[in-house]
Amino acid sequence: MSTLEQVSAARCFGGIQAVYRHASAETKTPMRFSVFTPPHEIGAKLPVLWFLAGLTCTEENFTLKAGAQRVAAELGLMLVTPDTSPRATGVDGAGASWDFGDGAGFYLDATQAPWARHWRMESYVTQELPELLATHFPWRRESLGLFGHSMGGHGALTLALRHPGACRSVSAFAPVAAPTHCPWGVKAFTNYLGDHRSTWAAHDATELVKSGARAPALLVDQGEADKFLEEQLLVDRFEAACRAAGQSLTLRRHAGYDHGYFFIASFIEDHLRFHADALKVA
Amino acid sequence: MSTLEQVSAARCFGGIQAVYRHASAETKTPMRFSVFTPPHEIGAKLPVLWFLAGLTCTEENFTLKAGAQRVAAELGLMLVTPDTSPRATGVDGAGASWDFGDGAGFYLDATQAPWARHWRMESYVTQELPELLATHFPWRRESLGLFGHSMGGHGALTLALRHPGACRSVSAFAPVAAPTHCPWGVKAFTNYLGDHRSTWAAHDATELVKSGARAPALLVDQGEADKFLEEQLLVDRFEAACRAAGQSLTLRRHAGYDHGYFFIASFIEDHLRFHADALKVA
Repeated sequence: MSTLEQVSAARCFGGIQAVYRHASAETKTPMRFSVFTPPHEIGAKLPVLWFLAGLTCTEENFTLKAGAQRVAAELGLMLVTPDTSPRATGVDGAGASWDFGDGAGFYLDATQAPWARHWRMESYVTQELPELLATHFPWRRESLGLFGHSMGGHGALTLALRHPGACRSVSAFAPVAAPTHCPWGVKAFTNYLGDHRSTWAAHDATELVKSGARAPALLVDQGEADKFLEEQLLVDRFEAACRAAGQSLTLRRHAGYDHGYFFIASFIEDHLRFHADALKVA
Repeated sequence: MSTLEQVSAARCFGGIQAVYRHASAETKTPMRFSVFTPPHEIGAKLPVLWFLAGLTCTEENFTLKAGAQRVAAELGLMLVTPDTSPRATGVDGAGASWDFGDGAGFYLDATQAPWARHWRMESYVTQELPELLATHFPWRRESLGLFGHSMGGHGALTLALRHPGACRSVSAFAPVAAPTHCPWGVKAFTNYLGDHRSTWAAHDATELVKSGARAPALLVDQGEADKFLEEQLLVDRFEAACRAAGQSLTLRRHAGYDHGYFFIASFIEDHLRFHADALKVA
């Protein structure tokens, strides 16, 4: 178990908003994550809600811009946001594009060189980081919710579908919902997983639902003015797959909203209350 | 009247969060400001709340981090945040320190070379920008509230005290409350106003109150873990001056909170409701 170094901590809505750094065994790099701990009684164990961020983001974007701490403090939810990829790996080309490599881990374990050594975000998020959290924080471990935005919405949906029982509630903002059919996904999967498309479906939320995987009842919010909706997100395909398969999905389309954090902030309270209901903390 | 260029716009809590750019006659540079327009009926005129940001900030910090739009949307308040100084002036030394020059306009009109030509933030904020707002936005002009943080808290307090009747409500987070007695203020005033300290008192909230200036009832929030409190902010001096002079002041000290935007976000709702009450919009 690696040690945790606290990078920063600030009081926020009666709780503590902190950032930690540790040496990750999975990614073989230093990794950062942010944790909001709500006000709570000493000795209490808390439900945790993980937020997976999108392309180009670090642990900082959601922490600074989503305005989630207010309602998390009210509901007694811890919020955890990991970084979106390993950093400073020295891998050639890792920083060459904004939609691949650094800041674009896609929440899977790469199988192809040179990415396979460090790009192990699925194992990092589903195994290493939960162990670390359980050791160092007052987490009631059976109470885990998962949500995310864009590439992180893809992460939340696919990790929930791939790891049944791992989380009790799942939601997403503007997720990359059918990555085998969009340019971001094709670029990432080709590089991380190789040319054999047969391996891709296991990391595509729409394909996973089609092939029988199930998640808890889902909430997805989507802005109708999101410039990535038609080419990259393909939320309609996911909706059709859920309907055909009987996967419970509440998909809300919001006129005028784009892909950014002002959209997330506008509906973050609904997501936190949705998770709190499922985690039985409200 | 200069034309306005919209730099960005995004739907946010049912309203619009936008950034504009224009050629300022006062600073003789392009200037940016952000505007949140809440949902409102066509033709309605809205009260405006100006937020003046602190050292190193632009119009972006408050807009992204304070979480103010949610309650502003509920209360029907416009939010306006100007930049904190002229930019790209070409003046030697303007970018040399983080607490002076670029990002550090101190909301006054400089009288000393080389600063006097561009550093005219008092005239910009009290004259040019209001004219622009009144022309291009649905502002009910008699309804103006002013608030700010740190150097911007200094700005809110001093501009309200120097321009009686200009605003109906004033509040501040961790203001630089006695700048003639702190390093940030001494550095700025020496450079912008010259060595004659007699000219400084007119830009120091504590000295203004002592010499008889009055503002509407004030709300000030201060974190007790703020590392700048003892040396730079000197809020105690301001409190003593208000008490002695009969200036109404509600000063709230918050255990454990620091100088950052998590502190601001934690109490922003109280400030918006305080202003809304004074502006009679709630």
